[in-house]
Amino acid sequence: MKQEFYASESLDCIILAAGKSSRFISSRSKLLFPFCGRPLLIHLLTNLKKLLLEPILVLGHQEDQIKAALADDHFFSSLKTVTQHDQQGTAHATAVGFSAVTQEHVLIINGDMPLLSSETLAACVNLHMQSDADITICTAITENPTGYGRLIYDEKRSWIQEEKNCSEQEKKCTTINAGIYIFKTTLLKSALQSMQKDQKSNEYFLPDLINNALSQGASLKTYEADFNEIKGVNTLFEAHEITALLQKKIINHWINAGVFFKKPDSVQIDIDCSLEPGVIIDAGVIIKNNSHIGAQTEIGAHSVLDHAHVGAHINILPHSIIRSSTIASTAVVGPFAHIHSNSHLAEETLIGNFVEIKNSSLLQKSKVKHLSYIGDTLIGKSVNIGAGTITANYDGFQKHKTIIHDHASIGANNVLVAPVVIGEESMTAAGSTITEDVPAYALAIARTKQINKEDYAKMRKEKMQKKTTEITPLLKQKQLQQQ
Amino acid sequence: MKQEFYASESLDCIILAAGKSSRFISSRSKLLFPFCGRPLLIHLLTNLKKLLLEPILVLGHQEDQIKAALADDHFFSSLKTVTQHDQQGTAHATAVGFSAVTQEHVLIINGDMPLLSSETLAACVNLHMQSDADITICTAITENPTGYGRLIYDEKRSWIQEEKNCSEQEKKCTTINAGIYIFKTTLLKSALQSMQKDQKSNEYFLPDLINNALSQGASLKTYEADFNEIKGVNTLFEAHEITALLQKKIINHWINAGVFFKKPDSVQIDIDCSLEPGVIIDAGVIIKNNSHIGAQTEIGAHSVLDHAHVGAHINILPHSIIRSSTIASTAVVGPFAHIHSNSHLAEETLIGNFVEIKNSSLLQKSKVKHLSYIGDTLIGKSVNIGAGTITANYDGFQKHKTIIHDHASIGANNVLVAPVVIGEESMTAAGSTITEDVPAYALAIARTKQINKEDYAKMRKEKMQKKTTEITPLLKQKQLQQQ
Amino acid sequence: MKQEFYASESLDCIILAAGKSSRFISSRSKLLFPFCGRPLLIHLLTNLKKLLLEPILVLGHQEDQIKAALADDHFFSSLKTVTQHDQQGTAHATAVGFSAVTQEHVLIINGDMPLLSSETLAACVNLHMQSDADITICTAITENPTGYGRLIYDEKRSWIQEEKNCSEQEKKCTTINAGIYIFKTTLLKSALQSMQKDQKSNEYFLPDLINNALSQGASLKTYEADFNEIKGVNTLFEAHEITALLQKKIINHWINAGVFFKKPDSVQIDIDCSLEPGVIIDAGVIIKNNSHIGAQTEIGAHSVLDHAHVGAHINILPHSIIRSSTIASTAVVGPFAHIHSNSHLAEETLIGNFVEIKNSSLLQKSKVKHLSYIGDTLIGKSVNIGAGTITANYDGFQKHKTIIHDHASIGANNVLVAPVVIGEESMTAAGSTITEDVPAYALAIARTKQINKEDYAKMRKEKMQKKTTEITPLLKQKQLQQQ
Repeated sequence: MKQEFYASESLDCIILAAGKSSRFISSRSKLLFPFCGRPLLIHLLTNLKKLLLEPILVLGHQEDQIKAALADDHFFSSLKTVTQHDQQGTAHATAVGFSAVTQEHVLIINGDMPLLSSETLAACVNLHMQSDADITICTAITENPTGYGRLIYDEKRSWIQEEKNCSEQEKKCTTINAGIYIFKTTLLKSALQSMQKDQKSNEYFLPDLINNALSQGASLKTYEADFNEIKGVNTLFEAHEITALLQKKIINHWINAGVFFKKPDSVQIDIDCSLEPGVIIDAGVIIKNNSHIGAQTEIGAHSVLDHAHVGAHINILPHSIIRSSTIASTAVVGPFAHIHSNSHLAEETLIGNFVEIKNSSLLQKSKVKHLSYIGDTLIGKSVNIGAGTITANYDGFQKHKTIIHDHASIGANNVLVAPVVIGEESMTAAGSTITEDVPAYALAIARTKQINKEDYAKMRKEKMQKKTTEITPLLKQKQLQQQ
Repeated sequence: MKQEFYASESLDCIILAAGKSSRFISSRSKLLFPFCGRPLLIHLLTNLKKLLLEPILVLGHQEDQIKAALADDHFFSSLKTVTQHDQQGTAHATAVGFSAVTQEHVLIINGDMPLLSSETLAACVNLHMQSDADITICTAITENPTGYGRLIYDEKRSWIQEEKNCSEQEKKCTTINAGIYIFKTTLLKSALQSMQKDQKSNEYFLPDLINNALSQGASLKTYEADFNEIKGVNTLFEAHEITALLQKKIINHWINAGVFFKKPDSVQIDIDCSLEPGVIIDAGVIIKNNSHIGAQTEIGAHSVLDHAHVGAHINILPHSIIRSSTIASTAVVGPFAHIHSNSHLAEETLIGNFVEIKNSSLLQKSKVKHLSYIGDTLIGKSVNIGAGTITANYDGFQKHKTIIHDHASIGANNVLVAPVVIGEESMTAAGSTITEDVPAYALAIARTKQINKEDYAKMRKEKMQKKTTEITPLLKQKQLQQQ
Repeated sequence: MKQEFYASESLDCIILAAGKSSRFISSRSKLLFPFCGRPLLIHLLTNLKKLLLEPILVLGHQEDQIKAALADDHFFSSLKTVTQHDQQGTAHATAVGFSAVTQEHVLIINGDMPLLSSETLAACVNLHMQSDADITICTAITENPTGYGRLIYDEKRSWIQEEKNCSEQEKKCTTINAGIYIFKTTLLKSALQSMQKDQKSNEYFLPDLINNALSQGASLKTYEADFNEIKGVNTLFEAHEITALLQKKIINHWINAGVFFKKPDSVQIDIDCSLEPGVIIDAGVIIKNNSHIGAQTEIGAHSVLDHAHVGAHINILPHSIIRSSTIASTAVVGPFAHIHSNSHLAEETLIGNFVEIKNSSLLQKSKVKHLSYIGDTLIGKSVNIGAGTITANYDGFQKHKTIIHDHASIGANNVLVAPVVIGEESMTAAGSTITEDVPAYALAIARTKQINKEDYAKMRKEKMQKKTTEITPLLKQKQLQQQ
C-alpha cells in the first residue's frame, strides 16, 4: 500500500461499539467473537493502526467484557474509550464520542467490520481530504442489498434511505450505505446540536443527521468500496460467511508467498501465524495462535499447530498435535504425536507414533519412536528411548523431573520413576522400573528372570474349555452382553 | 409450519417403491441408501408422518430387504405394503396400490425424494383440496431440465411430455413434472380401468394415464415446488449431490440455532442428532447416530461422535472418538482418546491422549491421562490412573471385571489382571503387575529391585562395535533392507 | 475413446519444456511439481503415450532435475531429449527440437498442460490430418482471457495477437491461443529458416513465426478445446486451481464407477490409485501412491493410505494410516492404527487402537487390539497379543526378529526381547519381559510376586500432606510454573 498521507494528522476516529447485537446468539459480545484467531473489534483496530489512527471507542453493551479484552491486548490496552450509558442510537453514540474529538475531521465507523482493509479506509479518507467535502460516505454495490440502507439520488439531491422506509422502486437500488462516514468536525458539531429523534424508535440515527445536513446544503462525496470488505456481522450465520471469506484471503496470501496447500479449502490458519516459502500443508491442518512454520517444512494431514514454533526442513507426519512448543529444523515428528506444554525438540530429533512429550526437552538426534510418555524430562543428545517407556513424573502429590544424559539408551517398556537421573552412555534393560539413578556407562536392570512352565498353557486351556462347557446358556448370554 | 388441515382425513397416499433403480450402482436398494444417517425411503416416510399420512407402500424389487429395514424401524415397522409382482410401470404400480385405497383423494409419490419437505407436500395437498381439481400435479422449474418429463401447455390444454418424446422446442421447456400427483379417487379409479400400455416399453405409465384423463376433460391444477426439494436419486452421482444439499441444510439449521462451526463445509451431522446453543464444532467433525451435544461444549477437530451423549461445558480435544457412550458435563477428553462400548464418564473426569476406555465407568474427578487401556472396569471418584496402565480384562478365555475404589492411585505402567479389586485410598507402585486384590489404604508393589551393573553398557558397546565392524558389507546391506 | 488413427504414423511431437517458469515460486522445476501424485510433465507424457506418440523433449532450465526424474520413471526413462542451451524463445526451442523430427507433421505443445486429455489431442490431430491445413492451432474460449494470446480474425486473415500488443478492442476477444500447434513439417522447416527476433525481448516466438507464415499464404485450421483442459501452470496459485480441477475429475470418475464418498470435496485420491465398486470413503481420507482398495471396503474418516493394497470387505476405522503394506480381505483395522513398512495382515486379522505394526506379518485371525508396537515380527494364526505389548526389536545396535507361532497368547504389557521365538499354543503371563524362547504349550512368566503393605498409602499420604504444607508459598509458585 502506498500511504499518501498520515491520516492521524488532521483526523479523529470514533468507533461505534456500544450496540446490543441482539440478533447474534452468543454468550459473549459479538465484538469479541474470534474471526480466524482475532476478535472482531481487534480486526478493525489493527487496520486503523496501520493508518496511525488512535480511535475513540464508544462502548455500552458488555462494556466490561470488551474493556477486559482490550486490557489483555498488547497493542490496544491503552485505547481511549467513552461510555454511552443509554443506547439512544448511532447519532447519540457519535455525540458521546464527539466529546473527545480534537481534530478537523472525524471518521465514524461501525465496530463490526473485520474485513475492511486499511487500503480502502485510506482511499476513502484521501478522497474526503482532497475533495474538501463536508461529508464523505462509503458505499458499496451488491446484487442483494436486503437489510442495508440505500444511497438514493434524484436530480436535485442524495440521501440515505433506511430499508424500512424504501419504496418498492428504492428497494431495487443496489448502492448501499456501508456505515463509514467522514465529517468536517465543524459540520458534525452543528449537526449533532440540532439532531432529532426518530419518532418510531425514539432513537437518534446518523443517517437522519446526515440527511438533515445534506438538505441544509452540506456537500457530499461518496467512495465506493468492495461489498465484501464492508460486510458487517449481525448474526451467527454472517459470522460464518465472514470467517470463510477471511480464511480464504489468508490462504491465498500464503499461496502467493510460496506455500503449497494440498487441499486449501480444508485448512485453517489464524491471521497472526506466519509461514515461509516452500512450506507444504496437507488437508485438514489447523495452524493457530501465533504459530510459525519454517521454509520447506511439510505439515501432514489433520495436524494441529497451536502456539507452535516449527523450524525449516521439518517433517510433521499426519495426525500430529504441537502446542506451545518449539521444534528445531530437520526434526521428524509423528504420525500421532502430541508435543505440548513448553517442550523443545532440537535438530534431527525423531518423535514417533503415539508419543506424548510434555514440558520436556530433547537435544540433537535423540529419539522417542513408539508409545511413550515423556513428561518433565530433560533428554540429552543421541538418547534412544525404547518403545512403551513412561516417565512417572507424578507421585500422587507432586511433579518431579527426569534427567537422561547424552547417548543413554532406555530399554523398551521402562518406567522411569522421577526424580531420577540416567547417566551418560548408560543403558537400562527392557521391562525395567528404574527407581534409582543410573551411573554413566552402567546397565540398570530391574526385572525378574523368566520361568517357562512346560505344558502349563495346554493344561490351563483344557481346564478352561471344560469349565466353559459347564456354564449354563443363561450365564453365557449374560457374559456376551457385558462384553 | 402452520398445518391448515390434517391430510389424513380424506387422503390416502401411495408410495411407488417397487422400481429397479438400475442406474444406481450399489448392492443394496437405493431406497435404503443412507442420506445423512437416514435411509432414502425413511426420509420420505418421516415427512409424510408429519402430515399424519399412513401411506400404502408398493414394493417389488428388493422387497425383502426393504421390509426387513422397515421392520427394524421404530416408527415404520407396521407400515401397510402391497407387492407389485411384475414391474409393468408406474401406472401399474398405482393400480396395485389402489387396492388398499379407501379415502376420497389419493396422493401418489415416488419413493426416492429425500429432500421433499412436509410443508411443500401440505401446500400441494391444500391446493388440491381447495381447488376441487380432478388432478393436481407438482411441478418445478429448473434451468437444466434434462432427464425430466416436461409440463407443456398450449392454448387449449396441458399435458406431460416425457423427454424422449419432446420436440426441440419442448425440450426448452423448464417446467418439469416432479412425480407427485393428487387425484380424486373416483377419477383415478376410472383412469386405471382404461389405462393403456406404452407401445415401445410395454409398460403402463402414470403420465400417459394423466394425459388421457386430461384429454377426456379432467380438470388440472399445478403446484410449483422448489426444484431442489423434488430432486430424485437415480444415480450414485445424484446421491452425492443430494447428500451435500441435505448436509448443508442440517448445518445451517444448527447455525441458526446458535452453534458455531469453524469450518462448516467440513462437518457431517446426521439428521437425527441434536446440538444445544453455544456448541462449537471444529473442522472435520462427524456427529452421527442420534448423538446429542450439550450447551457450550467444544468438539475438537477431526473427532467422531457416534451414538454419543455428551453433556454441557465439555471439552472434547481434537482426534477423539466417542462411540455408544455418555460423558457428563465439565469432563475433558482427548486429544487422541477413544471412549466406546457403553462407557460413562462422570463430571470433571479427565481422559488424556492415547487412552482407550471400553465398557467402563469413571466417577467424578477421576483421571486417565496417558497411554492406557481401561476395559470392563468400574472406577470410583478421584481415582488417578498412572500413564501406561493396562487392565488385563481377558484371560484368553473370558472377560473379567476390574473395580477401583475412590481415591485409589494406580502407578505408571501397571497391569491390573482382572478380576481384581483395588481398595479405597490404596496405591500401587509404578511398574507393578497387580494380580491380587489391594486392601484399602495399602500400597501394593510387584516389581524387582533395581541393580546397576557398573560399566556394563560401556563394555557391551565396545563388544558390539567390534562385532559390527567384522560383519561383511554384504550382510550389512541385508540388514538395512530389513529395517 | 474411439481412436481413429494411430497418431505416431506420420506425426512427430515436440514438447517445449526448457522455460524458466520464473513466476512459479518453488525450489524444484514446476514441470516436476506433483499434481494428484504425478509430476506435471508426466501428466502430459502419459496422455501422449495413449496416442502412441514418442515426443522429443526440449529441455533447458533445470534440465538435470528433469532428466533425473524421467530416469526414475518406469515408462519414460528412455525418452528422447534435446537441449536448448540459450533460452531464446519458443520458436528457437522448436528449432532445437526440430533437429530430431523425421515425420511429415509436427505437433508442438507446451509442457505444462496437465489437464489436456488424449481425446482432445487426438481430435485436434485428426482435424489437421483430414483438413490438409498447413497449420492447425488449438484454441479455447474463456470469459476471462487475461494473460493469454488471442486469436484475431478480420475479413481477410487470422493471426495470433500477444496480450501486450492487443488493442482495447482485441482484448475483449475471448478466443485464446492454447499453445498447441500442428504443422506440416515442410512448412515449419521453411518458417524456422526465416524466423525473426522480437525486437523488444530479443527472442524468437512461435506466434510470430505462425503469423509470418499465415501472411505468406499458409492455410490455417483451428480446433476449439475446452478451456479447462488447456490451462497452463504459471504460478503456484494456478497450480492450486489445476490440482482442484484434476482432483474433482478423479473423484467423479470413482463415483461413476460405484464408489460412495461421504464428503467428496474433502478427499484426495492420486491419479494412479484404483478403487472397486461398493467402496465407501469417509471424510478427509487420503489415498496415494498407487494404492488399491477392494470391493465393499470402508475407509474411515481421516485415514491415510499410501502405497497400500487393501482387499475387499475390509473395515478401516477412522484415523488409521496404512503405508507400504497389504491387508487381506475381511480384516478390521483401527481406529488410530499405523500399519507400515512392508507389513502384511491376513484375512480376519484385527488391529485395534494405538497399535503400530512395522515390517511384520500376521496370519489369519490374529489380533493386536490395544496400545502395542509390533516390529520385525512374524505372527502365526489365531495369535492374541495382549494390550500394551512391545516387541523390543532393537538392542541399541541391531534390529532382531520376533517369531510368534499359531495360537500363542501374549499377556498384557509384555516386552518380547528379540531375537525370541514364542511357541505354538504357548502363553505368557501379564507384565512379563520375555527374553528367552517359550516352548510350545508352555506358560512363560517373568514377574515378581505382589506384596500389599497395609496402611502404607495412608501413612505416606499423611506424610506428604504435612510436607506440602511446610513448603513456602514461593516454592509452590515455582512448581506451578514448571507444570
